[in-house]
Amino acid sequence: MHQHIEGIANRLMSQLKGSGADALGSFVTSRQLEVAGAPAVPDRLAPLIDHTLLKPEATAEQVRALCAEAREHGFASVCVNPGFVPLCHELLADAVPKVCTVVGFPLGATSTRSKAFETQVAVTEGAQEIDMVLAVGRLRGGEYDTVLEDIAAVVEAASGRRVKVIIETSLLTTDQKIEACLLAAAAHAHFVKTSTGFSGGGATVEDIRLMRAVVGGGMGVKASGGVRDAEAARALVAVGATRLGTSSGVAIVKGTAGGNAY
Amino acid sequence: MHQHIEGIANRLMSQLKGSGADALGSFVTSRQLEVAGAPAVPDRLAPLIDHTLLKPEATAEQVRALCAEAREHGFASVCVNPGFVPLCHELLADAVPKVCTVVGFPLGATSTRSKAFETQVAVTEGAQEIDMVLAVGRLRGGEYDTVLEDIAAVVEAASGRRVKVIIETSLLTTDQKIEACLLAAAAHAHFVKTSTGFSGGGATVEDIRLMRAVVGGGMGVKASGGVRDAEAARALVAVGATRLGTSSGVAIVKGTAGGNAY
Repeated sequence: MHQHIEGIANRLMSQLKGSGADALGSFVTSRQLEVAGAPAVPDRLAPLIDHTLLKPEATAEQVRALCAEAREHGFASVCVNPGFVPLCHELLADAVPKVCTVVGFPLGATSTRSKAFETQVAVTEGAQEIDMVLAVGRLRGGEYDTVLEDIAAVVEAASGRRVKVIIETSLLTTDQKIEACLLAAAAHAHFVKTSTGFSGGGATVEDIRLMRAVVGGGMGVKASGGVRDAEAARALVAVGATRLGTSSGVAIVKGTAGGNAY
Repeated sequence: MHQHIEGIANRLMSQLKGSGADALGSFVTSRQLEVAGAPAVPDRLAPLIDHTLLKPEATAEQVRALCAEAREHGFASVCVNPGFVPLCHELLADAVPKVCTVVGFPLGATSTRSKAFETQVAVTEGAQEIDMVLAVGRLRGGEYDTVLEDIAAVVEAASGRRVKVIIETSLLTTDQKIEACLLAAAAHAHFVKTSTGFSGGGATVEDIRLMRAVVGGGMGVKASGGVRDAEAARALVAVGATRLGTSSGVAIVKGTAGGNAY
């Protein structure tokens, strides 16, 4: 697998413009290729969970409840649509959970300028983590420079906040998943993430293992989409996931099964 | 039905802030309540069709093909994600079909500032029509001023271009659908539209009839989601739809059945 990834990285480097090729080259050279041993699965999963509510019909009242649960269980963050960032910022100002929001979500097909602006507004309003959607159609069309610049613009607009790049695994071939992870790394994103939960599919052990192999030990990997119980969560962490995006966080920490697709 | 709509309009007016209440009052007073007779269904449906490709995985090549089809058949517009507006503007500069794009799509849950900015960028890049998604969760939570201001900000950013408000019928009760149409009208939008195609449901004869009854004769009504053949298209036009959003436009004008969900 490592040889296959190297091959794709070399091909990408030859196809990208100078600065993009350089950035990818630096990443590949500095990458910690071997992650030492199998990742340890912690007893408490709560600190790995982005407690997520992204349904279009979610109300302020439901977002308040989400924040209360995140506080109670000590989740990593609440992950909400951008319109609710000010409310979450207010409710979680002195709390452990961070405020995470989504950008270009869930299609990833808006203009780069709009993604950057959406990020900037979210950061100004209190967002501490940004989960952006890759320009999936551009990747599938082989427009690698466009994909890289799109991510880099969001990373810049986030001014140091953590940026997770949702690659939408359900819409990509294996080679495209590898390309997506390499481009996210070259654009200096902090995490790669599997799924929006809105385009079918979801996190699989196979995809997390692949994504971890591509990014090495220096980046985060977030598993999202269909993570509904503690068993599934642990299996994903065991192969390299360092964050879990799910609307079933409470069920996961209580050891019951959640009902939602995300 | 008209009495029920009046009742909801009066309640909304009492709940909105002064300027919103005034705008809704003006609309209700000036509305052409009775649409004379049944709408005529034209022989040619093509001029009513927004030829639509909003899948996240759509490539530039597919968008080029969409534009060629729109030209060939004389559709009203191509409806694409914002990232493809420059390409469509270039390809359709001297053609009949307009360039239509989507804003806050498909969740409607980003910040108002981001929706306005996304609109402004799209207009600058050549978009002639803007299909925005209503802040569905805000409506369901009874935050009517927020919903109205969100639409009004997009209408303003569109600088006179036609704005269609997607109310996402599948997520609303009948009373909420009426509220959504009234707020779109009060915010000076030009059309109400049924569905994004991404949250289940789609255009029904019943919903189009209701939306037409609410907005009267002075606004457009766009049926979208699941419009797959000429028979369905004609039934929607017969009860008041003046635009059809579909990815099956070619099948509709050729009298065959399309395969896509949107």
